Amino acid sequence: MNWPPWCLPDSSIYFHLLGFFHFLAKKHISEEKKELSKYKLRICSENNFATAAGLASSAAGFACLVYCLAQVYGIDEKVVDLTILARRGSGSACRSIYGGFVWWQKGTSDDGHDSKAVQVASEARWPELRAVILVVSHKQKDVSSKDGMKRSRETSQLLHFRSKQIVQQRIESMIKAINAKDFDAFAEITMKESNQFHAVALDTFPPCFYMNDVSRNVIDLVNKYNAYKVDMGSSTRYSAAYTFDAGPNACIYLQDKDLSEFLSIIVSSFPSIEKEYVRGLPVEVVSSSVDIFPKHAPGALDYIICTKVGPGPRVIESDHLLNPDGSFKV
Amino acid sequence: MNWPPWCLPDSSIYFHLLGFFHFLAKKHISEEKKELSKYKLRICSENNFATAAGLASSAAGFACLVYCLAQVYGIDEKVVDLTILARRGSGSACRSIYGGFVWWQKGTSDDGHDSKAVQVASEARWPELRAVILVVSHKQKDVSSKDGMKRSRETSQLLHFRSKQIVQQRIESMIKAINAKDFDAFAEITMKESNQFHAVALDTFPPCFYMNDVSRNVIDLVNKYNAYKVDMGSSTRYSAAYTFDAGPNACIYLQDKDLSEFLSIIVSSFPSIEKEYVRGLPVEVVSSSVDIFPKHAPGALDYIICTKVGPGPRVIESDHLLNPDGSFKV
Repeated sequence: MNWPPWCLPDSSIYFHLLGFFHFLAKKHISEEKKELSKYKLRICSENNFATAAGLASSAAGFACLVYCLAQVYGIDEKVVDLTILARRGSGSACRSIYGGFVWWQKGTSDDGHDSKAVQVASEARWPELRAVILVVSHKQKDVSSKDGMKRSRETSQLLHFRSKQIVQQRIESMIKAINAKDFDAFAEITMKESNQFHAVALDTFPPCFYMNDVSRNVIDLVNKYNAYKVDMGSSTRYSAAYTFDAGPNACIYLQDKDLSEFLSIIVSSFPSIEKEYVRGLPVEVVSSSVDIFPKHAPGALDYIICTKVGPGPRVIESDHLLNPDGSFKV
Repeated sequence: MNWPPWCLPDSSIYFHLLGFFHFLAKKHISEEKKELSKYKLRICSENNFATAAGLASSAAGFACLVYCLAQVYGIDEKVVDLTILARRGSGSACRSIYGGFVWWQKGTSDDGHDSKAVQVASEARWPELRAVILVVSHKQKDVSSKDGMKRSRETSQLLHFRSKQIVQQRIESMIKAINAKDFDAFAEITMKESNQFHAVALDTFPPCFYMNDVSRNVIDLVNKYNAYKVDMGSSTRYSAAYTFDAGPNACIYLQDKDLSEFLSIIVSSFPSIEKEYVRGLPVEVVSSSVDIFPKHAPGALDYIICTKVGPGPRVIESDHLLNPDGSFKV
């Protein structure tokens, strides 16, 4: 993915995924494309989302690759579940096959081969929803947490309790919240799920720490912002919700009506040393007149991405990355 | 406690505790001390342990006060459980009524009035055990976590699972480990309990954070030290164990044979900006020749206290803080 061009090593997960597609292609390919299954492939991929920042950019890339190959070989999505294929490349890639709100189901098999993703609601369901990603500075050292999930399954008693007693009910409440566009319910489940995921990481032995002091300061700010909004007469209990994946970066959900205000507060509370501090969707960031929020040392955050719930992968008709004959454009 | 002299306000917990002692004194006082129960008291207290550092110094002071009052009034410990009394002043004070290894039992009553402490083993059981307290710099800001335990009880589902399914079995294993002087078992339970306590704090809503990045770095160092000792041929899996109370300071348990080496590594990994960096028991700290451990910025730790499992409160026959007539010495 991205430059320079390289050949897939035999051991790579891409190589195996492609091999599997060849196998599928031979089985399911449409008559007029039969010839294609004998060809080698030149794949050119570009990712415009921040890579290596723990923001699932590789999962997005994988989902794209799987969708693209299915298009090339004419594989019918009704016959082959692409989310199951994408999961073979990278677990979380299965979520990116669809747009909107997606539920990654664990399936019933122990080896996870029937784990797949289903769309809960399309991106059109809740167009007011926004996501602000706060990328924590790489200068903030992280304690290594490699193989964390495997170790959690092996050592955390809380994880087993959580997966048996808590997760299913929260998923149902979340689906309800999304369909009802109930921001209070959505926010509370989001934050509680994030907290409990990191609680389980801590209960792992040896423990995994994904969040750092900057992450904690972000949580503190979101709590203070929610309290401030209630003081200002907000009709909802929450105006913003944080969630942290397996890393220190925060994803803040909020509604478009609060986006400009919240960003102004973030930018004032976590001053930048970068020029392009706020990226993604264009948002007006003003000098915040509210000075009740703590001021942190400049540079704690690298940059901020404003985004929203988008559509899934799609075929584009122009601006291909390769020339029609397959040669590189550069 | 400590200077300057002051009168107890009617609302203070000390005031109530003293009132309760007067009540007890009238009921249980020995015949020859009967007159004493009519007197007012002048109490002079000095604490030589670091105060306000989250190291339970006030619990130690409370336990001392309760023990002292019981001595003054001649209250029989067989009739009145002093640990239950001490718990009225400060929950954790009940543990300090005894020396050695103490088990704080929650009791069966909902309001906790029968919660008490019992001694599991005296300090003579395991004289080789040492405790090293790493006091994290106050410059490391903490996110407020007031009333954390109450909020945990109200909001953490993991807490309820933990208290029902995990705690009792771990207590039994811990008592076994102490009596067998099994450092591996002792260390593993200690670290897992610390992790799980903080996991529950994180599962609280809004979450409580007691540890900070320095705490995480200490955990990382202890893990690396244990791996290093195994590489060096240690017969035990663990040579040191961390535990964190409701704050960022670490308590590291280890055996005297490893104390000097471990301290040398700590001092090299967390350089000091203080003169009196290592306090308490005299230990030889040498310039560490092992440079496989990460070096952190100077000043992350304020100071280090070396200590061991000690005896409970006792009456001293000289060096009283007041003159025989009750007047101040200063």
